[in-house]
Amino acid sequence: MQSLHTGQVTIVGTGLLGGSVGLALRAQGFTGTIVGVGRREQTLEAAKQCGCIDRGTTTLAEGVADADLVILATPVSVILSALAEIAPVLSPEAVVTDVGSTKQSIVARAEAELQHPSRFVGSHPMAGGAQTGPEAGDADLFTGKPVIVTPTDRTDADALEQVEGLWSDLGMRLSRMTPEAHDVAVARISHMPHAAALMLVNLAKAADLEVASTGFENMTHAALGDPNMWADIFLDNAEAVTQVLSEWRELWDGFEQIVRERDRAGMLKLLQNTQQTRHNWQQQRRPNSGA
Amino acid sequence: MQSLHTGQVTIVGTGLLGGSVGLALRAQGFTGTIVGVGRREQTLEAAKQCGCIDRGTTTLAEGVADADLVILATPVSVILSALAEIAPVLSPEAVVTDVGSTKQSIVARAEAELQHPSRFVGSHPMAGGAQTGPEAGDADLFTGKPVIVTPTDRTDADALEQVEGLWSDLGMRLSRMTPEAHDVAVARISHMPHAAALMLVNLAKAADLEVASTGFENMTHAALGDPNMWADIFLDNAEAVTQVLSEWRELWDGFEQIVRERDRAGMLKLLQNTQQTRHNWQQQRRPNSGA
Repeated sequence: MQSLHTGQVTIVGTGLLGGSVGLALRAQGFTGTIVGVGRREQTLEAAKQCGCIDRGTTTLAEGVADADLVILATPVSVILSALAEIAPVLSPEAVVTDVGSTKQSIVARAEAELQHPSRFVGSHPMAGGAQTGPEAGDADLFTGKPVIVTPTDRTDADALEQVEGLWSDLGMRLSRMTPEAHDVAVARISHMPHAAALMLVNLAKAADLEVASTGFENMTHAALGDPNMWADIFLDNAEAVTQVLSEWRELWDGFEQIVRERDRAGMLKLLQNTQQTRHNWQQQRRPNSGA
Repeated sequence: MQSLHTGQVTIVGTGLLGGSVGLALRAQGFTGTIVGVGRREQTLEAAKQCGCIDRGTTTLAEGVADADLVILATPVSVILSALAEIAPVLSPEAVVTDVGSTKQSIVARAEAELQHPSRFVGSHPMAGGAQTGPEAGDADLFTGKPVIVTPTDRTDADALEQVEGLWSDLGMRLSRMTPEAHDVAVARISHMPHAAALMLVNLAKAADLEVASTGFENMTHAALGDPNMWADIFLDNAEAVTQVLSEWRELWDGFEQIVRERDRAGMLKLLQNTQQTRHNWQQQRRPNSGA
């Protein structure tokens, strides 16, 4: 794996994810320059204070002009619009990646807009948290977490190696998928869980909320997430989400039938199989965890 | 509120909830005797070692015969069958309550089976945890949590006072509901969240699980819960769960329409309103919490 040790990395968007990439790069021994691009001087200053970036700029073109690697770490809609803006100023050899939660639209836009589409490699590090801003940045945010990389037929092998090397250096577990497969997978494991949290909040009437407790709290915590970021995700991934909503409906139909028929054997089988699947997943993910 | 300070309390089922009731009673200055009833000597011995109970018995009739207050803290199906067993041996003044997650069937069975139905008061303390067994017992398990008490027209005022006094002494926030209203409320705030965790595990294909991360982990943790206990709950509460499943379906229809129509304004409004509701709930519940 070809890792980046020197040169200039430009991180566009120095929030929790972007800031953590900067911290983690430095912690892994990167000795080049880390440039941050942001909308607000204040955030850039905070990112500098935290050691996430060496210097910041509010001018996107200036920030990426001399970059060897550009990491787009803004909400999806801003990644989409940034691609056209950076295209004219990127150096021909610069590798571009992103951390967006959807991939089809971003990869398609990158390949359409960039002058050297073979240098773009879509990424989705499956890391994050409830907190926001570079102050919440954490060099260990990525350790042991999965990252999905979505090269296409047009992607240069060395660009792919460099992006996989980046995430690998940060301790992530690499998976490769097509952008299409990625979008369906995350609709199932990330977007539907988020939507379920939203719907559970809306299911509860005011009187129910009075007596809601820890179970409700845990299952709806995600509903506190940023509305703009999630509007971007659901709408940008509307096609895959719609497909997965049909699968979701079928599962609920099966559950409802078991409940209606008071089918104790069927209910026990469902509960036991589900517990087993969830348990196996946890063991695979964190072999030493008790849960 | 009339509190219990002396006499005999019998806790049937000395798992996490029953054990914690014992610990909390003692911590609140109860000076009488706490008797535990269990199926296994081993669990009773553990409950005694933890200070959850003073003595244990595997014979239900013997355990409740001299009780002033009986607390049924087993899974729902065992509560239902225990009622007929304790009926002939209870003293006429003994107050009986339970901690079951459903109330219509339990209250109906209690009023049908007990010789003094006016002494029964259904309860549902909304407290619990991932752990099980008396060793996980915690005197603070109930502090600040809601408890729903479900008296009927037949309930004696002093029995109600004693049961409300018990939970109040343990630091719980009291709500009164009819058994019917209780079952619909918990279907919305507890049973559907649990079902959602199950369905999310089943929605994920094996390849998706490879890249699932923290969001999936948090939203599916409940699926590790005890299959027998949850089969009891879903089937005992089948009527309310079925009703709430229609409400649930309508919410998803609305969500799907917004996604299909790429309705950004509608999506933002949904996300913002939901965030606000969830935020207000959290503030009300834990005024000093940051989340």
